[in-house]
Amino acid sequence: MSTVTDKLAMQSEKFKKGLEKLKEIDGEAGENIIETLKEVSPDLARYTIEYPFGDIYSRPQLDLRSREIAAIAALATLGFATPQLKVHIHAGLNVGLSETEIKEIIIQMSVYAGFPVALNAMNAAKEVFDARKTKS
Amino acid sequence: MSTVTDKLAMQSEKFKKGLEKLKEIDGEAGENIIETLKEVSPDLARYTIEYPFGDIYSRPQLDLRSREIAAIAALATLGFATPQLKVHIHAGLNVGLSETEIKEIIIQMSVYAGFPVALNAMNAAKEVFDARKTKS
Amino acid sequence: MSTVTDKLAMQSEKFKKGLEKLKEIDGEAGENIIETLKEVSPDLARYTIEYPFGDIYSRPQLDLRSREIAAIAALATLGFATPQLKVHIHAGLNVGLSETEIKEIIIQMSVYAGFPVALNAMNAAKEVFDARKTKS
Amino acid sequence: MSTVTDKLAMQSEKFKKGLEKLKEIDGEAGENIIETLKEVSPDLARYTIEYPFGDIYSRPQLDLRSREIAAIAALATLGFATPQLKVHIHAGLNVGLSETEIKEIIIQMSVYAGFPVALNAMNAAKEVFDARKTKS
Amino acid sequence: MSTVTDKLAMQSEKFKKGLEKLKEIDGEAGENIIETLKEVSPDLARYTIEYPFGDIYSRPQLDLRSREIAAIAALATLGFATPQLKVHIHAGLNVGLSETEIKEIIIQMSVYAGFPVALNAMNAAKEVFDARKTKS
Amino acid sequence: MSTVTDKLAMQSEKFKKGLEKLKEIDGEAGENIIETLKEVSPDLARYTIEYPFGDIYSRPQLDLRSREIAAIAALATLGFATPQLKVHIHAGLNVGLSETEIKEIIIQMSVYAGFPVALNAMNAAKEVFDARKTKS
Repeated sequence: MSTVTDKLAMQSEKFKKGLEKLKEIDGEAGENIIETLKEVSPDLARYTIEYPFGDIYSRPQLDLRSREIAAIAALATLGFATPQLKVHIHAGLNVGLSETEIKEIIIQMSVYAGFPVALNAMNAAKEVFDARKTKS
Repeated sequence: MSTVTDKLAMQSEKFKKGLEKLKEIDGEAGENIIETLKEVSPDLARYTIEYPFGDIYSRPQLDLRSREIAAIAALATLGFATPQLKVHIHAGLNVGLSETEIKEIIIQMSVYAGFPVALNAMNAAKEVFDARKTKS
Repeated sequence: MSTVTDKLAMQSEKFKKGLEKLKEIDGEAGENIIETLKEVSPDLARYTIEYPFGDIYSRPQLDLRSREIAAIAALATLGFATPQLKVHIHAGLNVGLSETEIKEIIIQMSVYAGFPVALNAMNAAKEVFDARKTKS
Repeated sequence: MSTVTDKLAMQSEKFKKGLEKLKEIDGEAGENIIETLKEVSPDLARYTIEYPFGDIYSRPQLDLRSREIAAIAALATLGFATPQLKVHIHAGLNVGLSETEIKEIIIQMSVYAGFPVALNAMNAAKEVFDARKTKS
Repeated sequence: MSTVTDKLAMQSEKFKKGLEKLKEIDGEAGENIIETLKEVSPDLARYTIEYPFGDIYSRPQLDLRSREIAAIAALATLGFATPQLKVHIHAGLNVGLSETEIKEIIIQMSVYAGFPVALNAMNAAKEVFDARKTKS
Repeated sequence: MSTVTDKLAMQSEKFKKGLEKLKEIDGEAGENIIETLKEVSPDLARYTIEYPFGDIYSRPQLDLRSREIAAIAALATLGFATPQLKVHIHAGLNVGLSETEIKEIIIQMSVYAGFPVALNAMNAAKEVFDARKTKS
């Protein structure tokens, strides 16, 4: 097998693994983001599946519940990453965090990143919680 | 009892609870920071014990292991909070996170906050791990 | 009196002081934010009243005019805290800052945080100034 | 000539140079921003023309293509500066960057500032690319 | 007089005004920074004098005490701008802020930017206060 | 060939490509960082080579000179990423940027991220320029 063929096979292997992980964690919300992204940049869509999901979230060193706690804390702290924060509040609920636990992570962020970060993240959480109620 | 007396009693109640929590979680590293801080601002030292530890970390809605995952993720993401990140890497180890899990949270931060954040946080983790080895 | 009763009494004392301070400074805009917040997280609503307003803004070491200058500068610098920035532009006007002085703080932010921060904060200020004109 | 007259003459000299540079680089999008800004703060509008455009962008030490690469990278990294990022994606196209090159700068930002920054910047780029297609 | 001569005269006019303002506000600490900067980039040194000091700090719309409150709040909030924060803590003391007021601004930053920002800024303040005591 | 063997082969392929790119761009400074990193986290060291260098910097859509302009702008803007900024100032010089051009990118950052970012980045540049002079 030539190196190029290997590479493509490999990439699609990693891509497939990442896509499954993305579906497992983020559900429909994550898939929609990738679909929209693919229209403008198929390459960034591919890297977003390969590196965060194919590489990182597939590692066994940390359970998915812990990973989503870390993701929610980081995305809230950034302050400007509201769309991604919402995706990971969905993801947190998908992998077993309760609404109460997610609110608690956000309350804790007032300590490290200030009250505006906590208030804006709590509003994002409210929108996610409401959207899931409406849907079901 | 007058309101003022109530208030002082109360404050010392909350302060005491916060100080115990600080000792439980951060150990010596946390206490040293508070001692240094008290010299320049006893008021900020008191608030740091009362609000983050007396109020937030004393809440039962989230276990301490999860809280330290969130703290490490947030402090790494800020990028500039190296002294506090180190205190919470100590704290994470104190409440049951393994070195491997802490490194894994930091690796995950490359996704949300970029590689420089992950690289600098990993250096901070190395210093904490080494310091604990030397000491024991 | 039991410690628990004391605590509740105390809490309500601090809460009451904080709520009065919030009304004094932020007026209706601040109260609305707390009302919305209470629906999703009554605890974060309570902490937002107790710590920033009950504890910090009630301290006599700095006058309210100076506190609002600091708040506007900090919130503009964060870049993403537009809702909170607007609340404190209202608050600044409520405690005696002129529109000219608020614009001047924002212009000064171009030096420390760059022109995008200053431009976006100036747009937020325009919206607040316009809203107050329409209302009166 | 009095100092005051000198100053005004000079200012208008620098202002004129800055305004020409702004038109050359940012085109209509830049001019509209300045017009809106002038309503609330003519002084900040003037400084925005004088310092970034009259002083910095007029310097010959770096070509405009390179300057727009730096501007797009910096504005994407800030995370919250979406209006300014869009202006400079327009500007980048105006001074000779291709859509592919702009997307590539944004993909590269995933390395330094994380995937949320890259994803949000790519959405901003899509909006600019679409707006230019609709218009022509 | 030719335009070029005008321009140089003007620049030196603005530069002179800025340099006087820098000396008035920042004192020796500010001058030393400019001297070091001049070795690597005389142009950035000139702009630092001309725009922040010649243009902004020379405007009469806000008194210097208020400007230094805003500067300390903004620089503390950035988190990474420790050298500049120290210069402006000196400057704050030079234009009439008390140590107590400066500590109070920093304590207030715990609300907007989190406790790590407040703790690190308080350490910077301690260093400035100590340096001034040693010197006198 | 089994999938596992494929994967390892592939990984080493990508790793090798990344390592070559790292050497080409960052030279010794980059290699040293990876060596130190490997002691605490071989996995993060591997990802740092695979994703930024194996994936991103190996893409032909943007020349290395342009990539280093973007990297220097982004790393300066972050404010806290001084070690990485220095590596990429070295890298910029390695791929053909002049000292003057690098200083110019940094001066331009005063517009987007404020003067403290520009001043601190200029100091980092000075250290890199001096280190290279001493060495040669």
